[in-house]
Amino acid sequence: MPKLVIPRKAVYRLSLYYRVLERLNQNRIETVSSDALAKAAGVKPTQLRKDLTYFGQFGTRGLGYKVESLLAKLTGVLRTTRFQPVILVGAGNLGSALLRYDGFAKEGFEIIAAFDSRPEGAKTDNCKVPIQPVEQMKEFVREHSIKLAILAVPGVAAQEVTNQLVEAGIQAILNFSPLILQVPPHVVVNNVNLAIELENLTYFIT
Amino acid sequence: MPKLVIPRKAVYRLSLYYRVLERLNQNRIETVSSDALAKAAGVKPTQLRKDLTYFGQFGTRGLGYKVESLLAKLTGVLRTTRFQPVILVGAGNLGSALLRYDGFAKEGFEIIAAFDSRPEGAKTDNCKVPIQPVEQMKEFVREHSIKLAILAVPGVAAQEVTNQLVEAGIQAILNFSPLILQVPPHVVVNNVNLAIELENLTYFIT
Repeated sequence: MPKLVIPRKAVYRLSLYYRVLERLNQNRIETVSSDALAKAAGVKPTQLRKDLTYFGQFGTRGLGYKVESLLAKLTGVLRTTRFQPVILVGAGNLGSALLRYDGFAKEGFEIIAAFDSRPEGAKTDNCKVPIQPVEQMKEFVREHSIKLAILAVPGVAAQEVTNQLVEAGIQAILNFSPLILQVPPHVVVNNVNLAIELENLTYFIT
Repeated sequence: MPKLVIPRKAVYRLSLYYRVLERLNQNRIETVSSDALAKAAGVKPTQLRKDLTYFGQFGTRGLGYKVESLLAKLTGVLRTTRFQPVILVGAGNLGSALLRYDGFAKEGFEIIAAFDSRPEGAKTDNCKVPIQPVEQMKEFVREHSIKLAILAVPGVAAQEVTNQLVEAGIQAILNFSPLILQVPPHVVVNNVNLAIELENLTYFIT
């Protein structure tokens, strides 16, 4: 199947719909209205209907969507995104916590190697992969054709490490560092900044 | 100072500008152009200029922004957001990793208590706070007037725990569970779903 060109934020929402439909399917629920599906995914019904037009129309007026067939369609769109090997760079406090987290593997993303500028100082208890010196990172990425990296280095090192990753062939970075990374157009970056998430929330506390 | 009404996403970007300006200030850089500040924060210059009009005009045409005075202004806007006590609910694999992460405290968010439905089974090595039974959560939130919670429970428990948190007075939730939470309008939720972030990135790998 040729890859559909779907905007980034829409792909994100497709992942949300996918998870809701999976849950419905497990509970043997056969149809779902667009309103109910939208609510469960936290989007507006108009947004949901618009997103689903990327691969044809599925809803039946008054009956809603068939859970199984919509799930199959979404699986087709998103399946290429699973079972990707990932490397992690930066095994400090957050990085080593992420290494111990088994939720990535459960969803088909295995962290197959980890790198740090001071591997001997990393907290490696309970980590499943050894921490290698960052000097070996580029070679490893090339050798294993790794495309995806999780970046958990301090801000001061983030851009330099990113440059090396991109040179070695990395195409997508999940960035936990506090820096906004400058990357060429073929590389995508998603930022997760936990402190900013909290800061943002607390602004709205009365 | 009365609280300005600034949209949520704009507040998020103010946090980004704040961090860039802090770094510039530490490096004794006195002025910054809107283009340079926008690039470092990963936003378009027009967006930056629009965001900064929320509290008056600061740039001088051709000279850019004065780092120190813009930083002071942003500190004024965002300062109420710091030094908030936080509780964490769900001390499983991810929750206990977050408990060990010291980045929250560094940014002024101290996790003062943690709760789990099976506290005796939680991985508590290196955790700074004891894990309490979830039955004690509501009373704790009320007693200490906690407004902010980090939710790291499984999806199946997330809505029920959320209902209890809201009843007890929680106003903001950083949600790591895979569920979209249904909350009343006075409660804000930010979602962090690490698996979806990876899934989203890999969709764009060629």
